Amino acid sequence: MESYYARGDHTLKVPMSLFRENRERLIARLKRNSDVSAAKTFVILQGGIEVPFNDTDTNWPFRQESFFQWSFGVEEPGCYGALDLSLEKSILFVPRLPAEYAIWEGKLHTLEDFKKRYGVDETYYTDEIKKTLKDKGASLLLTLHGKNSDSGLYSQEAIFDGIGEFEVNNTTLYPEICECRVIKTAKEIDVLRYVVKISSEAHKTVMRMVRPGLGEFQAEAAFLNYIYSIGGCRHVSYTCICGSGHNASILHYGHAGAPNSKILEDGDMCLFDMGGNYCGYAADITCSFPANGKFTDDQKFIYNAVLKARDAVMNAVKPGVSWTDMHLLANETMLTSLKEGGLLIGDVKDMMKSGLNEIFQPHGLGHLMGLDVHDVGGYLPGHPERSTSAGIRKLRTARTLLAGMVLTIEPGCYFIDCLLDDALTNPNQSRFIVREQLTRFRGWGGIRIEDDVLITETGVENLTQVPRTVEEIEHWMAEGRNELKLPQDK
Amino acid sequence: MESYYARGDHTLKVPMSLFRENRERLIARLKRNSDVSAAKTFVILQGGIEVPFNDTDTNWPFRQESFFQWSFGVEEPGCYGALDLSLEKSILFVPRLPAEYAIWEGKLHTLEDFKKRYGVDETYYTDEIKKTLKDKGASLLLTLHGKNSDSGLYSQEAIFDGIGEFEVNNTTLYPEICECRVIKTAKEIDVLRYVVKISSEAHKTVMRMVRPGLGEFQAEAAFLNYIYSIGGCRHVSYTCICGSGHNASILHYGHAGAPNSKILEDGDMCLFDMGGNYCGYAADITCSFPANGKFTDDQKFIYNAVLKARDAVMNAVKPGVSWTDMHLLANETMLTSLKEGGLLIGDVKDMMKSGLNEIFQPHGLGHLMGLDVHDVGGYLPGHPERSTSAGIRKLRTARTLLAGMVLTIEPGCYFIDCLLDDALTNPNQSRFIVREQLTRFRGWGGIRIEDDVLITETGVENLTQVPRTVEEIEHWMAEGRNELKLPQDK
Repeated sequence: MESYYARGDHTLKVPMSLFRENRERLIARLKRNSDVSAAKTFVILQGGIEVPFNDTDTNWPFRQESFFQWSFGVEEPGCYGALDLSLEKSILFVPRLPAEYAIWEGKLHTLEDFKKRYGVDETYYTDEIKKTLKDKGASLLLTLHGKNSDSGLYSQEAIFDGIGEFEVNNTTLYPEICECRVIKTAKEIDVLRYVVKISSEAHKTVMRMVRPGLGEFQAEAAFLNYIYSIGGCRHVSYTCICGSGHNASILHYGHAGAPNSKILEDGDMCLFDMGGNYCGYAADITCSFPANGKFTDDQKFIYNAVLKARDAVMNAVKPGVSWTDMHLLANETMLTSLKEGGLLIGDVKDMMKSGLNEIFQPHGLGHLMGLDVHDVGGYLPGHPERSTSAGIRKLRTARTLLAGMVLTIEPGCYFIDCLLDDALTNPNQSRFIVREQLTRFRGWGGIRIEDDVLITETGVENLTQVPRTVEEIEHWMAEGRNELKLPQDK
Repeated sequence: MESYYARGDHTLKVPMSLFRENRERLIARLKRNSDVSAAKTFVILQGGIEVPFNDTDTNWPFRQESFFQWSFGVEEPGCYGALDLSLEKSILFVPRLPAEYAIWEGKLHTLEDFKKRYGVDETYYTDEIKKTLKDKGASLLLTLHGKNSDSGLYSQEAIFDGIGEFEVNNTTLYPEICECRVIKTAKEIDVLRYVVKISSEAHKTVMRMVRPGLGEFQAEAAFLNYIYSIGGCRHVSYTCICGSGHNASILHYGHAGAPNSKILEDGDMCLFDMGGNYCGYAADITCSFPANGKFTDDQKFIYNAVLKARDAVMNAVKPGVSWTDMHLLANETMLTSLKEGGLLIGDVKDMMKSGLNEIFQPHGLGHLMGLDVHDVGGYLPGHPERSTSAGIRKLRTARTLLAGMVLTIEPGCYFIDCLLDDALTNPNQSRFIVREQLTRFRGWGGIRIEDDVLITETGVENLTQVPRTVEEIEHWMAEGRNELKLPQDK
């Protein structure tokens, strides 16, 4: 029987063939696209290692490195993997653990155990990498070296005792494995659909708990509890952003210096951006809603401007479309609504030319999503490069869409003091802003509506299932209250 | 008004004077104990930095480095701190953040903001460290360099642009700051008492949820939710250990390779070792109880053997007592009970000499606890060194106890196959084991009872508040069921 990843009977069973298919795709692509001969050529990948918390004997909570997860789906730290390009075989190398490990960390699994569990062709210990590759006649190793276009950091290139005895090519693998990761298989889509569904349900649970007096961090706690207990998601792919009131305008709120510590107030909008991680795969969903469950007119105005932008993109997005065009469509649609509501004045095309779109939405429309929340492949060779122009330079990709891509669509509208101050002193932008109207939105926060979507052959499938219209949100929040007991209920 | 750390109104307010007192203690101790002249001498500490998750643009969930937390209580990454030994002043250096930070991460706090919030004497930017120290006439810098006796890793010694222009002493600071950390102040004890209380309540909540069919990870999720939502603890100090059945015998179960994924079965014992972290301070509590709420005779037998060991230590522990003696007392008491119950035969003193205690409890009686769960100071110069003898070599400290120390007391009894196999083939040990009796405990798991205690002037205060006797546990588990909805209840 095939081995799979699950947490009890109630969570998704992820078959290990998901990772085998990924390996097969990579091998096929390398054979097809690269000018490297397959004979005696091996891909070699190094898995993640435990990272100690400073000098202590505890570690950061381990999650597998994404390229290794994609190709082997292995839960343990300290492994390596190899792919024999000519025989199309996979080899997993696991650490040879000391006997004492059995006392502290549990049963010492055999090589046969690992082979069965992860569905690879062969298994050896990591101290046998050189010998194994030599025995198999390897002469050229393809290692992973490339720059992540979101972080600017380089991937960890495999290194092991004796690697110097092989020829190493570190340029071929990175763009090809990234291209593979950009297009999701049916099995990967199953996992993404699951983690997005669980994260949607968790958001809905949180929405029913929310009320003035609740701490932002209590919403975070409830989300984490739901995705783990119900969904089997031990990790999130990014720190939960639970901004209320003014904090909703801080794009990456929730970090150590701004740790979701405010108490929700009556009249606040909430912007909660949270997503679970299941078997390495990410969700990334934002819900915006009033803390007290009832939108004011101003809240409706801004919310609907963002929702209209989102709907415009949802209706236009399909294979062959440029992501940059989708971003501009969202921005234009939103600015048009802000003009209709009296906050802006003038020609929307001219507003766009002046870069006003970047004042109200200083981030891109969305990003590729997969194992990483900001997934790889945004700016690879052969695709449009990152623009330097205001309004589109923040986009995490400028690619033409293809079926099988998974992306976030996340238009937003924020009232960020430093940006508004800049715009008001810039005659090119200030002429579009109705100052008397803007005043009451100072410190107001922001709105983001973020869905996770799959590009299909004909259009788009929205994987996210949360209340989205004003009416749906108000109805959902009014209909029932969550049972979780809070300190203030005592 | 003094600034403090809290999460809403319902969690403990930790005054920033806690950290000021720590700084004052360190300065006084350095002046008293070291032969370094205070004139022109500055302590310089480097705070924790964000650690990226491999090459991605997300980070491991930041927690402050412990020495820096102890002396400054600062939540933000990337800071430095200095102490002027002669003027007895504290200086905090914070990163100079780019203007764009305001968009992504929130308000740019001023130096004055940081000074007020953390109650330090002066604040500067980290790019001004050299200039500031030069302006103050610093000539000697005391930096932190020392080996953690639990991990074998070295502390991060401060480094900054221009440090080469100062004389640096990296040997004096480490043992002195560790000695300070060993003895807790009244304010630190308040925080520890709080986080142990919250963690106790969370354990009790989990106990009422437990039943056959529940996933180990669902117990972990409920614990994490309680400590965060009710207690304001965003982090744990170590990965939750939620072992059931055989897994209860794996001392550090719960890691990535054994991630609390089993489903509880009728007849299992549970061994749940979990503790919250509040304002940097740790709790570390283990509760052992039957999954179905009712002890079998065998479960009672082993549980009471461990409880008796724990009670013996609780009654004996006080200032002036050797921790090694406490460990041996616990082991002897437990082996005596195992003999009385018919599992062992022969003279208990002889069993101890043969190292049989290490077969059933292959870990130490407990450890110092504070900011780190295994806190620093276990093996410092001037105190007993780590023994190499079987039965006591695993102890994380061999010190003579002092009032103000906080430690765990955590005797345990485990049935670990590889150790039992060793013992049965070792004539020196096998002669004490009644094989027919042992058979039914193979694969049975283990018991640990772990309390967090404060050494007082006259004895000990147990900070932990959970049901401990068989009767208390059965009563607590029977009395009420937790409301949390589980997937299997759907």
